[in-house]
Amino acid sequence: MSKQNKPMDEHIQNGSLLGKKLNRRDMLRLTGASGLGLLLGGSAIGGIMGTRENTPSSAVALDNTGGDIIPFHGSHQAGILTPAQNFLVFAAFDLTTVKLPEVRKLLESWTTAAASLTSGKLIGDANDNLNLPPSDTGEADGLQPSRCTLTFGAGPSLFDARYGLAALRPAQLADLPPFAGDSLDPKWCRGDLCVQACADDLQVAFHAIRNLARIARGIAVLRWTQEGFQRTGAADPKGSTPRNLLGFKDGTGNPEVSDNAEMDRVVWNSSSDGPAWMAGGTYMAVRRVRLRIEVWDRSSLSDQEATFGRHRKTGAPIGATDEFAELDLKVQDKSGKPLVPPDSHSALAHGDGTVKMLRRSYSYSSGLDPVTGQLDAGLLFISFQRDLLKQFIATQQRLAASDRLNEYMVHTGSAVFACFPGIREGGYIGQSLLG
Amino acid sequence: MSKQNKPMDEHIQNGSLLGKKLNRRDMLRLTGASGLGLLLGGSAIGGIMGTRENTPSSAVALDNTGGDIIPFHGSHQAGILTPAQNFLVFAAFDLTTVKLPEVRKLLESWTTAAASLTSGKLIGDANDNLNLPPSDTGEADGLQPSRCTLTFGAGPSLFDARYGLAALRPAQLADLPPFAGDSLDPKWCRGDLCVQACADDLQVAFHAIRNLARIARGIAVLRWTQEGFQRTGAADPKGSTPRNLLGFKDGTGNPEVSDNAEMDRVVWNSSSDGPAWMAGGTYMAVRRVRLRIEVWDRSSLSDQEATFGRHRKTGAPIGATDEFAELDLKVQDKSGKPLVPPDSHSALAHGDGTVKMLRRSYSYSSGLDPVTGQLDAGLLFISFQRDLLKQFIATQQRLAASDRLNEYMVHTGSAVFACFPGIREGGYIGQSLLG
Repeated sequence: MSKQNKPMDEHIQNGSLLGKKLNRRDMLRLTGASGLGLLLGGSAIGGIMGTRENTPSSAVALDNTGGDIIPFHGSHQAGILTPAQNFLVFAAFDLTTVKLPEVRKLLESWTTAAASLTSGKLIGDANDNLNLPPSDTGEADGLQPSRCTLTFGAGPSLFDARYGLAALRPAQLADLPPFAGDSLDPKWCRGDLCVQACADDLQVAFHAIRNLARIARGIAVLRWTQEGFQRTGAADPKGSTPRNLLGFKDGTGNPEVSDNAEMDRVVWNSSSDGPAWMAGGTYMAVRRVRLRIEVWDRSSLSDQEATFGRHRKTGAPIGATDEFAELDLKVQDKSGKPLVPPDSHSALAHGDGTVKMLRRSYSYSSGLDPVTGQLDAGLLFISFQRDLLKQFIATQQRLAASDRLNEYMVHTGSAVFACFPGIREGGYIGQSLLG
Repeated sequence: MSKQNKPMDEHIQNGSLLGKKLNRRDMLRLTGASGLGLLLGGSAIGGIMGTRENTPSSAVALDNTGGDIIPFHGSHQAGILTPAQNFLVFAAFDLTTVKLPEVRKLLESWTTAAASLTSGKLIGDANDNLNLPPSDTGEADGLQPSRCTLTFGAGPSLFDARYGLAALRPAQLADLPPFAGDSLDPKWCRGDLCVQACADDLQVAFHAIRNLARIARGIAVLRWTQEGFQRTGAADPKGSTPRNLLGFKDGTGNPEVSDNAEMDRVVWNSSSDGPAWMAGGTYMAVRRVRLRIEVWDRSSLSDQEATFGRHRKTGAPIGATDEFAELDLKVQDKSGKPLVPPDSHSALAHGDGTVKMLRRSYSYSSGLDPVTGQLDAGLLFISFQRDLLKQFIATQQRLAASDRLNEYMVHTGSAVFACFPGIREGGYIGQSLLG
């Protein structure tokens, strides 16, 4: 089980259901979640699953998590520390209104919809009236909640002259500076608002973004979207660290999401960090990185491993055998050369080891690149951090300057967003900013 | 459980493993397949899964199928009658060689690779040599076979002047005629060869196409690709008929793949049908259909149901309650009007009920359409049939002329392929044509 997949305390799976009486619909949904006997301690409905709670623990990881619900409400937004779901649909929106009350109205409407979408319910109550357009588009009807999370953020442009919010812009929330080698296409950059939809089912994530875009009609339009994937739980029952499309494990060095103090240091804004409305929030950096797969595929295994600074098979640092062995940049071979090349991706990303960020990236495959005729495939890099300048920007400047991996990739999209603090029951998305 | 998901006799899951001794690697893989105790009758390794074989049958559908292998070899190709996997990567290739022996060499190389890819093994034996480019690109290393199938076909252009194959072209294998309302973009049309990669994991399917494209270097290049999805098994543990992105169940009326006589009538070419090399093969029609989602979402439920001729919630024909109720076009309401509108999609596709084809379509979502700024999402329609003219073309002409659904969709891509007969052990893809 990878670090990223360890359970954490903030969003306990199915936690929101433990405190309330289960109705018939909940029961039906829950009995569809094969792991539930274990999640509920095998008590409430263990009998439905037969003797499931007696199966050896090695079988547990095989269970699907379709029925699991990640609570939408909380002190922080879900979809950040949440162990990465298998699929992503990322969406950046542009506001078409110039009226702040309409922005507020949109975020209130999105709040109501998001609470339904993340719990696997149909949106609204106009789904049986023949004379109306259904309030839910229906393609996820009958599907499990699939750990769907929706994470909302504000881009730098929300604080321009349109809405009178300029004084509330966090100093660090600005378009990223140019990095060496960038080849950005405006069609994959920026956005007034973003929604990161993650779920263990792609149709569930698509359905969420499609319905949020529908609700936004007249107030906001989609600016860009990108679908992403990791491996499914069925394909990887042990929950290993996923591999990127270059064949290497990606996410091994992530900080531990169950370590509250570490998350307070690395991810969450405190009330002393910046504008008060961002306390409990975090900053998201998004980069669309096309991988030059065809060039990579012609390089030798030793080149590939020296490029990453890790072994392909195990994910361990060069010279080590354990994926999670510490990246020790001082270890040398017999000739006195460092085993992990100083210009390898791992070494440069690691730096002096004091600066971390929480990465939550997905692979993408989007047909062919019209210019090269080669696969347009790569990584939608997403990271969360307390401080964009000290964490993402400092790291990316180091990487852009000399990362061996630069030969095999090109950054084609870029955006940053201030992810709002968590949504309280009865509150709405972005309330600390707009309330 | 939908019709399409019923087991069939041709490609029994794990069937290829039953007859041979299991080695340790097989065992490890198989024990990752939580449904295996049932597939093997709970005998061989049932103990490893605890008392799994005693769980009630309602729990069976919850099991993941990650470890299941669909045999690559057989009298017909897999990926046709195979119950649809959750994900698709479709690829059309253009040959860049003019030498027939090189085409044969490519298909031989693909055969070897496909046997590995569909069984979850790394391709080739150059994956541990530091001085060579690895023979497998590695991103599926450690992933389960995930019911991966690879289905190969030849487009009409393979029979042009280049390779001396013109005399062997099946009369019906030609570019589809124009249909009313077509808006085809050449970048999603045609191809000398096709590979349909299906798997219950998108990374597994991507890995297959990426490696086949890599192996083709110097002989063929990708012409177009399209990723597709249905819902995952975890999100839909009951295996219901999947819904398309208009929210309606799609595939309800498919013929029964376990009915051998029906499949011989509808899908498989016999030796008397056309060129001898196609005996045991079938014809594939592929249409990339963009759905006008934003327009659809503004129509009322009654409009939507009249458009499909079915109820959205249940998938049942209008007036019926059972999804699988026969589509009876003679049933009338009290005023004498047919309950299922004659110009509804279901009524027109059904016709007089004598002509069927086997549909195996996937939804797609490919970011935004650059022209409209709206979602480029829809359906990669795929059908298999014995006779393109009598089955696909006759049906599509009827639909293109008056289907109510035409208002909500536009066909942007089109291709047809002759899918080769099955590959025998020791043989190669397309051998009946090129051997």
